Amino acid sequence: MFRVILIVGDGMADRPVKELGGRTPLEVAYKPHINELARNSVLGIWDPISPGVRPGSDTSHLSLFGYDPRRYYSGRGPFEALGVGADIKPGDVALRGNFATVDDDLIVLDRRAGRTLPENQELVKYLNDNIGFVDGVEVKFYSATEHRVAVVLRGFALSSDISDTDPHEVRAKVLSSKPLSNDENAVRTADIVNKLTLMTYKLLKGHPINEARVKKGLPPANIILFRGAGSISYIPKLQEREDIIVNRCLAVSATAMIKGVCRLVGFEVVTPSGATGGVDTNVISKAEEVLKAYRNGYDFIYFHLKGTDAASHDGNARAKIEMIEKLDRAVGHLLSNLDLTSTVLAITSDHTTPTSVKDHTGDPVPVMIYSPELIGDGISDFSERSARKGSLSRIRGSDLMYTILDYANRVNKFGA
Amino acid sequence: MFRVILIVGDGMADRPVKELGGRTPLEVAYKPHINELARNSVLGIWDPISPGVRPGSDTSHLSLFGYDPRRYYSGRGPFEALGVGADIKPGDVALRGNFATVDDDLIVLDRRAGRTLPENQELVKYLNDNIGFVDGVEVKFYSATEHRVAVVLRGFALSSDISDTDPHEVRAKVLSSKPLSNDENAVRTADIVNKLTLMTYKLLKGHPINEARVKKGLPPANIILFRGAGSISYIPKLQEREDIIVNRCLAVSATAMIKGVCRLVGFEVVTPSGATGGVDTNVISKAEEVLKAYRNGYDFIYFHLKGTDAASHDGNARAKIEMIEKLDRAVGHLLSNLDLTSTVLAITSDHTTPTSVKDHTGDPVPVMIYSPELIGDGISDFSERSARKGSLSRIRGSDLMYTILDYANRVNKFGA
Repeated sequence: MFRVILIVGDGMADRPVKELGGRTPLEVAYKPHINELARNSVLGIWDPISPGVRPGSDTSHLSLFGYDPRRYYSGRGPFEALGVGADIKPGDVALRGNFATVDDDLIVLDRRAGRTLPENQELVKYLNDNIGFVDGVEVKFYSATEHRVAVVLRGFALSSDISDTDPHEVRAKVLSSKPLSNDENAVRTADIVNKLTLMTYKLLKGHPINEARVKKGLPPANIILFRGAGSISYIPKLQEREDIIVNRCLAVSATAMIKGVCRLVGFEVVTPSGATGGVDTNVISKAEEVLKAYRNGYDFIYFHLKGTDAASHDGNARAKIEMIEKLDRAVGHLLSNLDLTSTVLAITSDHTTPTSVKDHTGDPVPVMIYSPELIGDGISDFSERSARKGSLSRIRGSDLMYTILDYANRVNKFGA
Repeated sequence: MFRVILIVGDGMADRPVKELGGRTPLEVAYKPHINELARNSVLGIWDPISPGVRPGSDTSHLSLFGYDPRRYYSGRGPFEALGVGADIKPGDVALRGNFATVDDDLIVLDRRAGRTLPENQELVKYLNDNIGFVDGVEVKFYSATEHRVAVVLRGFALSSDISDTDPHEVRAKVLSSKPLSNDENAVRTADIVNKLTLMTYKLLKGHPINEARVKKGLPPANIILFRGAGSISYIPKLQEREDIIVNRCLAVSATAMIKGVCRLVGFEVVTPSGATGGVDTNVISKAEEVLKAYRNGYDFIYFHLKGTDAASHDGNARAKIEMIEKLDRAVGHLLSNLDLTSTVLAITSDHTTPTSVKDHTGDPVPVMIYSPELIGDGISDFSERSARKGSLSRIRGSDLMYTILDYANRVNKFGA
């Protein structure tokens, strides 16, 4: 069995960029180490979900790790909560929430409490300090961007089969959450969410922060509206899966959502100092963490670089090229410190984020897999274009994980 | 409609072999007939299950014949029984078993009765002669390698949803099989398996073979421990399927497991004299059987060659090359005796068995399909590498069977 290092440039794949003369950032970037490895690798293109379907970072990562997202993805609530660093277990119910403004009759005046809410974290801490439990169920709020929060309910016999309290329009009254089935657990959970809604109102309406906001002419953040209840179905950890053989898994990432998904499927997670998730991230310190894990005997190491996606969402092709060149230097650092006779190394992107679109698209992404047991395709450039000619051809979804692990001799036989 | 001959070199596909200068046995082998046919064929690569997933011989053959193994494969019990020549029907429950050594309190002293058990067949015959039925359910034991057996239960209202009697450790007591659901049939089947376990103990403990073994200082084979209960779900025979048109199907093979799967899906099976399943097999006599069936009007003929896999499991690249060259001569013999204006001929491998790994891997395998109605790809060499450039591209699972039958005009329309 070989050890595996999987390297992902988040949103690294692109479409031809006009200002680059119709080439992509990956084609333009100076990346001698990646190209040298490419020459000895098999190349191909990979559809993170299926052709044309635009992946989220959550669904594409489930897929990347060999979990069919159509089976295991359970809605935005729990994954948004993962994205803000929540710890979620099967059985928990997670909801998305907004700080909002209501009047004394609970009529919604502003669904986003003005949208700008620098006091978000402070208010979330206040709620957590003063609620804790509702009817024996543990309640934990997590602060997100602007007016957004996530909440996780943990306890026995909960169900996410409940409706929103968010009326999704202004001048409407806050809704009562209702069970969407006859399930007792849903009846109970809806009741808890309704109680929780009133508690947020009672705690927030007279809070000094809101008094100050009103004085400044800003809408008070005096209630939380809930929507998108979901729970995570049982996901077997990588180590528990009978079809593959991986034991010690480590992920190096600075991105909350990715770290959440990684933990969910059984990775230990480390964020090295200087790793920011942005274009200013320290890539070499990430490579150092990878090497440390490699020396310590981890058999599956995931190296995630967010900066390429951040540059793409900004529509900044130049910054993206720079990130890819940083990644190349990190790959070079790895290559000179790894034993390539017993290591499988794969490089890909979790989805395409064209700098022209500034968002994820459903295009296939290039992938390259180096294995000591394979003769490479001899393609000495790694890009969206060159990978189309590779011998891996076009594979999809969780096929990639199995293909990588197969070349590392870590897939168990299906059948006899 | 054309007639179809499907030729499989078991485990024929390989990875680059160091001692062959990085080429594969298929690349190195002298195979003028296969290559001549390749030039007029369409080529491609095929994933027996899906990319990266390592197939067993059973699952890959289900797939090869157009049956999704994720739907039809029902665990090792029944397929292991098929592998030792058992006749299994839907509704039967099959279990794997070990001859084991227990003391008077049914504490397991040796789960394998010393592992070496040349008396296996004789003891199995004794059990079959003296048991026959338990509670109206027919019981038949089949001898397997070393200490292993398979048992098939046949009768109404059986269920494989039961636990093992094998405690899977020594110094533990033989377990009681328990129903794993509330299903009445499971309760009844567990009860039968428990009675059967005690019967094997009563019959075996005083058997002269065991008395002789004890005298020689060998552990007596005085009970059978059962595990892995499974049953085969209903599998429509090829002839019964409404999506394809095949009538008379013949398989030429010398391998018990393959013959079992072939029978299960509707093939008549023949093992010509001199066919051994090993590297010493007489390939020309197999080709003769194919030609006989062809002249007798069979419309789907399967030609299975095991020797390539046997050589691979031994890690013997030279023997593998020799087997491929034998196969080539058999193909030559076929080509000079077939009417190629009305015959579709496909050559592939059921999975990759790299001589470096000595076991099946999940790599894609090359496939070539000759049809009188197709213009070939003009690729005059059939190998793992060349097939990547073929026009079939990369297909998976049961797609191959449909593709072959489509080129023989034997697929019914889906829709109007």
